[in-house]
Formats: sequence, structure tokens, C-alpha cells
Amino acid sequence: MRTVDVSLPAARADRSYPIHIGPGLVDRLDAFIAPLAPTSIVVVSDATVDGLYGARARAACAKAVARGRVAGVVIAGGEGEKTLATFGRVIDGLVEARADRGTLLVALGGGVVGDIAGFAAAAFMRGIRFAQVPTTLLAQVDSSVGGKTGVNHVQGKNLVGAFHQPAFVASDTQTLKSLPPREVSAGLAEILKHGLLADAAYFDAVARDTPAILALDDVALAAAIAGSCEIKAAIVARDERESGDRALLNLGHTFGHAIEALTGYERWLHGEAVGCGLCLAADLSARLGLVGGAQVARVVAAVGAARLPVRIAGLSREAAVASMRGDKKASAGRIRFIVLEAIGRAVQREVPDADLDATLVAAGYV
Amino acid sequence: MRTVDVSLPAARADRSYPIHIGPGLVDRLDAFIAPLAPTSIVVVSDATVDGLYGARARAACAKAVARGRVAGVVIAGGEGEKTLATFGRVIDGLVEARADRGTLLVALGGGVVGDIAGFAAAAFMRGIRFAQVPTTLLAQVDSSVGGKTGVNHVQGKNLVGAFHQPAFVASDTQTLKSLPPREVSAGLAEILKHGLLADAAYFDAVARDTPAILALDDVALAAAIAGSCEIKAAIVARDERESGDRALLNLGHTFGHAIEALTGYERWLHGEAVGCGLCLAADLSARLGLVGGAQVARVVAAVGAARLPVRIAGLSREAAVASMRGDKKASAGRIRFIVLEAIGRAVQREVPDADLDATLVAAGYV
Repeated sequence: MRTVDVSLPAARADRSYPIHIGPGLVDRLDAFIAPLAPTSIVVVSDATVDGLYGARARAACAKAVARGRVAGVVIAGGEGEKTLATFGRVIDGLVEARADRGTLLVALGGGVVGDIAGFAAAAFMRGIRFAQVPTTLLAQVDSSVGGKTGVNHVQGKNLVGAFHQPAFVASDTQTLKSLPPREVSAGLAEILKHGLLADAAYFDAVARDTPAILALDDVALAAAIAGSCEIKAAIVARDERESGDRALLNLGHTFGHAIEALTGYERWLHGEAVGCGLCLAADLSARLGLVGGAQVARVVAAVGAARLPVRIAGLSREAAVASMRGDKKASAGRIRFIVLEAIGRAVQREVPDADLDATLVAAGYV
Repeated sequence: MRTVDVSLPAARADRSYPIHIGPGLVDRLDAFIAPLAPTSIVVVSDATVDGLYGARARAACAKAVARGRVAGVVIAGGEGEKTLATFGRVIDGLVEARADRGTLLVALGGGVVGDIAGFAAAAFMRGIRFAQVPTTLLAQVDSSVGGKTGVNHVQGKNLVGAFHQPAFVASDTQTLKSLPPREVSAGLAEILKHGLLADAAYFDAVARDTPAILALDDVALAAAIAGSCEIKAAIVARDERESGDRALLNLGHTFGHAIEALTGYERWLHGEAVGCGLCLAADLSARLGLVGGAQVARVVAAVGAARLPVRIAGLSREAAVASMRGDKKASAGRIRFIVLEAIGRAVQREVPDADLDATLVAAGYV
């Protein structure tokens, strides 16, 4: 097992937490929970993950709390469930379980479960502790660091939520064996992104280990997950409230969000759209004169080797630009992109319309 | 105009804010808003307060934001509206107003509006700025300090919410002229409580000024409101997360909550129940040997002069104790009370059943 310590800024040292990574951790949750001495535990999961790991997780939890006070709340899965109504049902579940200020909420599942359950933990009695047990590669490398929780509004993703740090994260690499291969690739998109924006050596190592990661090798997975968490934690620690450096984590995401929006959030997984977005961001960086063609080719090769789309042709340039202008991260209508200055170094830039258009044309947008 | 600066602990100095107190501030909100340079303003109010002050408040806001970007959201009034559904409607209103991260939410109204709107500000895009313009005496002396926001659940009050500090508070003493006299007295209960638990000189001054406060004299009101805010701010600054000293603010509340619960939350206003609760807490303190009968008499006289109930006879002792044991502030079934060591000094104590019973019997509980 590897452990990454996420240390938030000095003034908030009380909110640091460990991320444990390794095989079989679902059965060993009691070791991480016991020091927290919760009065009770409520495990929140979706129907699929609950069927696979719910009983084992609750059994491990029961060893860490007096009189086995462990309850379960099961929600339907999927991004469409990430609503205020589902949030309300998790709150109802906490009330039914007679949760109190000493209760630990355990979020067992992918990003949707973590986001909803984390927001419920943030809001119940104005904040109880929670632990994340992410069961997708994307959640293990992305949602487990940063403290973002929330639900969607019909008018926008993650419009309602809170910053709430977990007490710990336990990423069990064995749970990835039940994940569809497409979702493993989607997680790799965020892993590659972390390397691209902050650490060239890590990017190269991940690119080299991609076959082992896709084959779900525990050692390769743990190394990739730990490295990603370290990079994201360092950025978040510098900027817990997303005013500056944290924006770098949006590398590939402005393009990716537009791809998702233009394809109705169904054709492509978020990670797949981000994978393609990394290729677009690399191409745009080259047009701005920041990187050369060889570096763009390395990005495209790594994304392709991860079995992610490197090109999604046929989308409307006009609709894509309109979507990107409306993006929550845009400020006052102008589009800021995260672009590469090198493999391993990213910056924010406002981009001339002509360069953006050229990137979209080259990528097969119409 | 008086201004009280609420300084939170050193590590959180970025979240300090001023409380402005005086007559006519609703028409001068632009002066407080301009330094915040919001991109737009959304004024949240209830139907009654919106009818009285909404237009004036929005007109003042419009002077402080470019292109007059001011929208209004009106909710129904009353504690029964303090639900997750109403919270969702305020979020909808923010979305309809095209609010963004630079938007300022202005909560114009009593405690219910402040609690719901404050939680909406805490959760919208994971936190936007908000200002409180409390229009009841209770909200001016209680909700304006502490950062507590939230809504009720059918199983308990304030079960869902957030700690979110306002950018500023503007307490317009003139708005109290539209308040029913019972609500002025209810506000006085919390004012007397603040004196009792922290400052004997302030308690005596408030008791002396009670007729002027009930007559809505601007100078007496501003002095009482400022003093209360200073006392509460000092306590909250020592204990922002309610683990220790902040519990002292519950003086009179354990009894008061039980009175409200046993009378269906309709017969008595919260402040009236707290006023009676102060008398019960004083009596209990005497039974514990902490204060003498003369001090109990001073408390009862001050509560009575504020036109608050000093005795609510006929309630069930058994039901009252059961209600107090289930109180959110109780820990593991034992009841901790805030009791007086003197006028101006309070402490937490676990109380023998016999003393509690004697207090209830003496107060006419059956």
C-alpha cells in the first residue's frame, strides 16, 4: 500500500488527509476508520457498486464502530442522478440512520457518488466527516483530491455544492477489475493530463506503463494513481479556492466540455472528451509557438496508446466556440485556455480567435 | 451609524466583515456594496419584506453595480418555508438571473430569509459572496453573527446547511418599525441573553433601556444591537466551529427549544420561548448553588419588562425532559445545560435529574 499525504495550506493544517492506494483496501477500511472513532457510519453507494462491494465495505466498517452502527444508503447511478433531489435523499438516509455530528459518511463508488455524498456530508448538520472509497480510476486520480463536492443544475454542471475535504481516501486498485475498459482509459486521460501540466518524467513513465495500467497491474496502477494524486495535491495546496494555479487542472477541459456538450453528454465519456481535448490543447499550444510538432506528436501518441480518441471530427466550430464562451471557467465572454509551454509545464492564455479556429479546422471540426 | 467589526480567528482573517447599524441603511446599501465590485446583485427576500423594502433596497443596489444588474428573488415567508425545496428555488433564481462567481447575493428579511439565502450563497458555484440586511431585531442581534446558514428537515431544525460568513451586515433600525411588537420583545430575549452570559454592565444597560428599545428609539436600539453583536462576535471568534465556548450562546435555549417543541412551534415565538428559558436557566443555576435568589429575580424582572413570558405553566415534565434529551446539542443522551455562575458569566454543566425536575416543578410544569 502507498500513502500520499494531501497537505492543505498551513492555516488549514487541520484539514490535511491521507490517500491510501493499493489492492484489497475495501476489506481493510476499519484500519483507516478506527482512529476517527465515529459514533456511527453511513455508507453511500450506487446500486451497481453496492452490489459488487457494498457488503464487504460495510462489514469492514462494522469492525471500527461500537455496536456495529453501520447503515447503507443506495442511490441510482449515473450523471443524471447528480441532482438536488438525490442530495435530499442522501440527507433523508442520514436522518433515518440517526446520524449525528460524530457520524462518518463513507462514499463508495465513482465520481457521481463521491460528489453527491460529499456534498451531503458537507451540509448535514453543517458538516460531518466523510471518507472516499473511489471505485473508478477517474475518481481515484481526480475526485479524491481537491475537496470539490456538489450536484448539477439543469442549467449547468456542479452549480450547487461545497468545498469539503475527506478524512481519508482509500483507493482499492482491485475494484478497477469490475470497471469497463473504456472507463479505465477515461481515467488515464486525467493521469496523462497531470503529467503534461506538471511533470514530464511522470508523463513519460505513464506513457511507458500504459499497457500495464490498461491490464490493471496493481503495481503500475498504484504508481500512476499516487503520482497523479501528488501532482494534483501540490496544485490544490497552492490554491485551495481555485483563484489561480488550480485552473491549470483544466488542461484539455475547455475543449473536452465542449465536446461533451455538443454530443449530448452521451456519446463520449468525460475522460474520453478530455483525452481528445489534450490533443487539441497541444495543437493550439503549437500554433501559439509554445511547443513544437514533436511534442504534439508525443501527446497524441500517449492519448492514442491509452485507447482514447485523438480526433473527433464533424463537430460544429461555431457551436463549439459558443459552448466554450459559456463555460463556467470563462470570464466575461473571453475564452482562456490552458496551454502547454512544454511537456510538464502549462500556463493560462487568452487565445486569438484565428489560432483557435485553425486548431478546430485541423481537428476536423466543420 | 455604528460599525462592529467581526474578526474571525487569525488564520481566517480573510473572512472578517463589518456590521453596520443605524437608521436608513436600506437606502444606503450602495456605499457598502461598491467596494465589493460585484458583477451583479440578486436580492432575496420574502413577500412581506419585499413589499415593504424590496424596491428601495434594489434601487440602492443598482447604484453599486454596472448596468444596474440587479435581480430579485421572492420566497414565501415563515419557518415552514425553510426547506430544501425553497433553497432549490433560490438557486433557480440565481441561475435565471445569470449569476456568476462575482455576483453578490443580498438577503433582505428576517432569520428565515437569511438562513435560506445564506445557504444558497454558500452552495451556488460552491460559494459566492452575500450580504445580510436583517429586518427583524432577532436577526439583527443573532443571525448576523456566526455564519450559520441552512434549512430545516422534517426531522429537525437546521439539519442541512453551511458555515458561510457574509461580506457585510447592514442592520437598519428603521425597518423595525414595521415589526409586530411581539417580535421586538423576541429580539430582546437574545439581547438579554448576551448580557447574561458575558457582560453584566451591558445586561444592566439593556434592562434600563428596555422601554426605549420597545419604543424603537434609534439610539437605544443601535446601542443594544451593537453590544449584542460584539458579545456574540467575541464568542464566535474564539470558537468558529462550535466545539466549545460557542455552546454558551445556548443559554436558555435547551429549555426554550423544549417549550417550542411541546407547543407545536406555533403558540410561542422562538424568542419568547428563550425569554422563559432564561428564567428557567436562572432558577436551575440557583438550585445548583451558583447564584442567589436576588440574581434570579433580576433575570425574571428584566425578561418580564421586555414583555416576554417568565413562566409557561402546564407543560409536561416528562415530555420536556424527553425533548431536551433529543436536542441536537445534547451529547449521548445526557443533558448539558448552560447555567449562570453570575449575571454576566455562564458555564456548561451536566445537571442532576433532581435539580432539573425541581426547576420544572417550580415553573408550573406538571
